[in-house]
Amino acid sequence: MPQHRFQKALPFTEAEYQRRLALTRKAMERAGLEVMLLTDPSNMAWITGYDGWSFYVHQGVLVFHDADPIWWGRNQDTNGAVRTVWMGDDRVIGYADHYVQSTIRHPMQDLSQRLIGLGHERARIGVEMDNYYFSAKAHVALVESLPEAVFVDATALVNWQRGIKSAEEIAFMRKAARISEKIVDGLIERVEPGVPKNEVVAEIQRDAIRGVDGDWGDYAAIVPLLPSGSDAAAPHLTWNGDPFRKGEATFFEISGCYRRYHTPFCRTIFLGEPPDFLRAAETALVEGLEAGLEAARAGNRACDIANALAAPLERAGIERGARCGYPIGLSYPPDWGERTISLRSEDETILQPGMTFHFMPGLWMADWGLEITESILITENGAAECFCDRPRSMIVKT
Amino acid sequence: MPQHRFQKALPFTEAEYQRRLALTRKAMERAGLEVMLLTDPSNMAWITGYDGWSFYVHQGVLVFHDADPIWWGRNQDTNGAVRTVWMGDDRVIGYADHYVQSTIRHPMQDLSQRLIGLGHERARIGVEMDNYYFSAKAHVALVESLPEAVFVDATALVNWQRGIKSAEEIAFMRKAARISEKIVDGLIERVEPGVPKNEVVAEIQRDAIRGVDGDWGDYAAIVPLLPSGSDAAAPHLTWNGDPFRKGEATFFEISGCYRRYHTPFCRTIFLGEPPDFLRAAETALVEGLEAGLEAARAGNRACDIANALAAPLERAGIERGARCGYPIGLSYPPDWGERTISLRSEDETILQPGMTFHFMPGLWMADWGLEITESILITENGAAECFCDRPRSMIVKT
Repeated sequence: MPQHRFQKALPFTEAEYQRRLALTRKAMERAGLEVMLLTDPSNMAWITGYDGWSFYVHQGVLVFHDADPIWWGRNQDTNGAVRTVWMGDDRVIGYADHYVQSTIRHPMQDLSQRLIGLGHERARIGVEMDNYYFSAKAHVALVESLPEAVFVDATALVNWQRGIKSAEEIAFMRKAARISEKIVDGLIERVEPGVPKNEVVAEIQRDAIRGVDGDWGDYAAIVPLLPSGSDAAAPHLTWNGDPFRKGEATFFEISGCYRRYHTPFCRTIFLGEPPDFLRAAETALVEGLEAGLEAARAGNRACDIANALAAPLERAGIERGARCGYPIGLSYPPDWGERTISLRSEDETILQPGMTFHFMPGLWMADWGLEITESILITENGAAECFCDRPRSMIVKT
Repeated sequence: MPQHRFQKALPFTEAEYQRRLALTRKAMERAGLEVMLLTDPSNMAWITGYDGWSFYVHQGVLVFHDADPIWWGRNQDTNGAVRTVWMGDDRVIGYADHYVQSTIRHPMQDLSQRLIGLGHERARIGVEMDNYYFSAKAHVALVESLPEAVFVDATALVNWQRGIKSAEEIAFMRKAARISEKIVDGLIERVEPGVPKNEVVAEIQRDAIRGVDGDWGDYAAIVPLLPSGSDAAAPHLTWNGDPFRKGEATFFEISGCYRRYHTPFCRTIFLGEPPDFLRAAETALVEGLEAGLEAARAGNRACDIANALAAPLERAGIERGARCGYPIGLSYPPDWGERTISLRSEDETILQPGMTFHFMPGLWMADWGLEITESILITENGAAECFCDRPRSMIVKT
């Protein structure tokens, strides 16, 4: 039994963490890996439960075939790790503070010494070459300090194991969805001509963190995005103190978050009478969404959703030129996507029950934009289930 | 004159951006660089004005000696770039969406083609090897697609140019400081036994984004951190729905943010009568802070602040074992530090007027913690100026 100094409030059962570890070990075996180094904070949390805003310094989780994972990070963050991971306290190790942002030492030099101490100096080690927070320098430092080890690019190896959600995870996403709905309800109530954008964002964040029905809200991996009018052409602008204006559409890209699980949900609010081209785009987009939801069923492929969406849009003369969705679940900044499947014509991944996506066919044209989206669950039978339950249309406030 | 399709609301004057560009080009010259690729979103924004939550995909800014910088990123984000950068629209270029999170293509292959088109296939190119969002894979892909170029590790080259703030930047930080004060005032009012933590965080975020005196609040690069009691040993835990409890200390690590500029400010609230050891730690910490502020003057070294702080703490038997501060200013998640100077005994950087730091001597012991900090400005003469003006002590609510 693992030894713990502190009482823990782990989000999931022991069985759930063992399920994840078993999946990961099988994937490691297929890739011929003896050790896997996880540096993506979402993967670290999924495997161990670790939760803290410490990913701005180098840290990681080591996964082995024959021993519990090791959490490794800055000394001061071991205090957070022993309070949040399911492993025993002896599986939490820290590096000295003089490695932090040093120009003469690198934390990966400490990690390599740990690996040598564990007898892995000649191991085949998987690293997440293209995940967040594994810098080019971290890789170079690790390779230089372990010259006899073999490093293998195992980007997204764990992300792929996260694709099919357990019942425990889906329950969290349902809680997140209630928060997403609450945020959108608040928007419909509060967005009016003359109200400054930041005032509305202040209420979004308050609603998001207060949560719903006693389920407290966590921070989402992306801040609210809400460009208006011509700026709605740009999908990733945040906010300022300008007022909402009559005659403008604003899309709101938000997500409730419950214990790091997300259900993004986007709606567009038009203040006044929408122009015909926007009404026509809305009609085509909703038709495309509904066709996509029908296609989003177990046994179909990711591209089937994208192709179903594209047909009515094309008929309306709209070419999107971007993927229309991605898997969702547990995430840390800067992204609430899982970075595996992309809903686009070239992705032939087979959809399976328990997969969850943000079906996100945002329209970002030269000088206007429109977002109406759904977070969805692939079910055993039939079309996808939408996590949120709100009208699938542009919201018009005249 | 640069050509712009859209009206811009740039945060700074043209002179300020030219100052930054000139500093960067001089640093590039010293490092023998013909081209510098910036991938840290803070550096990208500092040089160009670019502001958007798009750093979850590969993007960058190219700096040249003889031409305006180029913003490069995902096609859909060029819409945000032409609306936020000072350069002409022709200095904004995008890559096709099928590069995004692809397993068969990498966005850096697109960038390398652009560099070849500009005649830089044999250039000495600086890259930020250990800054955020430049992944190990990005580096490998770039090196492989430009076999004749010479890549030089220019980590923090631009971060170092950001160290001394202009009057325009300091004015932004003063606005951020008013927001920090407002947040702390709200905490003192609202934190009571039995109040759930997430309810208090909801109000922090609301205060932060509403801003002060018509200056709208931006999102901080780190979410509020507020562990209580034994958990306050861990510097980077976020929040949950547990209530604040009588007999416990909670530290609050927060920052106001005005147009991406930060002034972090931490205070500790004790509910009830603090134990003697905590009172003794507070006394030593405040003495150390005040000694550090006296040492934080132009001409002294970074380590002088750390050493001044350490003396009274050592007399009280407290060994911190971590740096006690870092430069602050413009930042994007995941960090509001600039990652250049560290306030610690081995850092002999000379302090200069206009430098700004978060003087952050957090105490994170085995099962308690205490944070009382100041964001400071190094002045022409005399001790450092504190951006915020609130009592420098533990806040006790009996």
